[in-house]
Amino acid sequence: MSAQSAIHMTSAQASNVVALRPQVALTHQRGTRLVDLKPKYGGASSQVEVRYLWAGAAHAPTVVVQGGISADRDVFTLDGQPGWWQELVGEGRAIDLRHCRVLCIDWLVPGDFGGQALGSVSTEDQADALAAVMTELGIEAVEAFVGYSFGAMTGLAFAKRHPSRLGQLLMFSGAHRAHPMATAQRSIQRQIVRMGLASGQSELALSLARQLAMTTYRGSEEFSRRFAAAPEFRDGRFQFPVEDYLNHVGQKFVERFDVERFLALSEAIDLHDVDPGAIQLPVTLIGVASDRLVPLADLCELQRSLRGATLEVIDSPYGHDASLKEVAKVAPLLRQALNCCCGV
Amino acid sequence: MSAQSAIHMTSAQASNVVALRPQVALTHQRGTRLVDLKPKYGGASSQVEVRYLWAGAAHAPTVVVQGGISADRDVFTLDGQPGWWQELVGEGRAIDLRHCRVLCIDWLVPGDFGGQALGSVSTEDQADALAAVMTELGIEAVEAFVGYSFGAMTGLAFAKRHPSRLGQLLMFSGAHRAHPMATAQRSIQRQIVRMGLASGQSELALSLARQLAMTTYRGSEEFSRRFAAAPEFRDGRFQFPVEDYLNHVGQKFVERFDVERFLALSEAIDLHDVDPGAIQLPVTLIGVASDRLVPLADLCELQRSLRGATLEVIDSPYGHDASLKEVAKVAPLLRQALNCCCGV
Repeated sequence: MSAQSAIHMTSAQASNVVALRPQVALTHQRGTRLVDLKPKYGGASSQVEVRYLWAGAAHAPTVVVQGGISADRDVFTLDGQPGWWQELVGEGRAIDLRHCRVLCIDWLVPGDFGGQALGSVSTEDQADALAAVMTELGIEAVEAFVGYSFGAMTGLAFAKRHPSRLGQLLMFSGAHRAHPMATAQRSIQRQIVRMGLASGQSELALSLARQLAMTTYRGSEEFSRRFAAAPEFRDGRFQFPVEDYLNHVGQKFVERFDVERFLALSEAIDLHDVDPGAIQLPVTLIGVASDRLVPLADLCELQRSLRGATLEVIDSPYGHDASLKEVAKVAPLLRQALNCCCGV
Repeated sequence: MSAQSAIHMTSAQASNVVALRPQVALTHQRGTRLVDLKPKYGGASSQVEVRYLWAGAAHAPTVVVQGGISADRDVFTLDGQPGWWQELVGEGRAIDLRHCRVLCIDWLVPGDFGGQALGSVSTEDQADALAAVMTELGIEAVEAFVGYSFGAMTGLAFAKRHPSRLGQLLMFSGAHRAHPMATAQRSIQRQIVRMGLASGQSELALSLARQLAMTTYRGSEEFSRRFAAAPEFRDGRFQFPVEDYLNHVGQKFVERFDVERFLALSEAIDLHDVDPGAIQLPVTLIGVASDRLVPLADLCELQRSLRGATLEVIDSPYGHDASLKEVAKVAPLLRQALNCCCGV
């Protein structure tokens, strides 16, 4: 099947046309490009391999879509495991591939810079990588940058550094800087992982870091509803219902993520600090009242700095994860904002 | 100085009279009593050594005061390091030792039961230990039980099991059960500590567990105000201002606490589950809107079950720690409630 083979091609030339509906010809490129990048934290300019997905209606305008640090370029997939925003990106979906193309990259890590960088990576680096890939693909400007969490932070860096290459910015649950309480929680996650690296327990440590992260992603009410049952005495100690969930979440993460990647991207969130003052283009901020990681107060502060930006609030018990779970609430916001290019 | 010698006496007979003000003779007992206790989780009845402080005006009514899991019997001290509620307990203070006596014990841990218990300890065990010490000291009933955090939970267990021995209950930032989100956060703390025990990194692990606990004790706004500065590049990596604070907090805890004690008392919070339905005596609940560990919603639920209990809300950015930091807001609540025996 041609779509599948495209998914597994990694050369810079991977490109083909897949007719998913008789009437719409969709292009689907999933490849890599070598681009020149100068990292923010030390190091000279170097050639970096950027993995991207560019898919949708041929010749339609492009929309960048970037997710959290654990998301990859597969915002949707044509087969296999669903992409991280599968229900929102596709033909007839809120980001409608009959009317636009999505462009997404895998996040860069310091190792991609070939030992040039200080060991830290920035949202500016990610934004520059996207701009360089756009140039390689012949995309002068994208209609919109839709970012969630770390993707939203990267979108702000992109708007700051490459304003002429962007029509509008949509930021879901991401701000101009990390909140110090969230930095504290991520710092502890990184310390756990470094402790595990030092003692040969890196898998357990990464699982614990993810478990801790999950307590910051989700709302308190949701946990209250799901995990109110009494503990069981098992394997020599009391086990609480929420612990089974946390262990499962941690284990799943260990299977698909690695320690160095986690350390670098977690730190990149905390290093993120973009002055939004000079940004002129239209920005829509989307926040969630139950988000413990990115408080609404920080989005209000960002809105004030941006002057004229719109702030939408999603009512959800899912906290920072609401943009992943509340498809029915996120879709209308996307449709409304992208009406110019992708609306149905 | 006789007060000092009393502080260092640990026999069951330690008792003396200290004239701190010419007009008021204060008694000050800091000793141990052997009592029979049957732990909730397995094991037969056994003799347990309970360390207590009983201090205040001779022949005045007694008020039990118990703090969080890291607090000890020294709610105040006459010299040396200040007690954990030093500013609220003393002559002329909100709990006025010219008009009452305070009774406090060190929390029991499973090791105190001499290998009889399952390795878990309960708020019921702590409540029974207090009741047994009261019997030993000849205290038929106390005027009030003032508990903060784990102490509040223990107070509820005491009211349930020994209702005739108590006039009223004041619960600061503690409920009838742990919130599942807080259980999740404590479970991760215990997993970190068990991981450190397995690899010989128990001090680092205990420090990390405490750091994580601190992010749950404090409010988000306070962190935002204190730790907004940019990171510094130091010792090969970026260090965020909040990390210096967290490391300091973790280190201080390691110096005064041990791993087994932490594991047992942290678990005891999560095992706490007292049905408040049958409790008839006057109860005052004191909550804090910014408390991330004990949400006001849980205190409202407890208030409904108790029927007729009073709920007071402290406005503070200090979250779960507000009862330790907001002396000026806590004092009037104590004075009002304890008016019958300790008011000034």
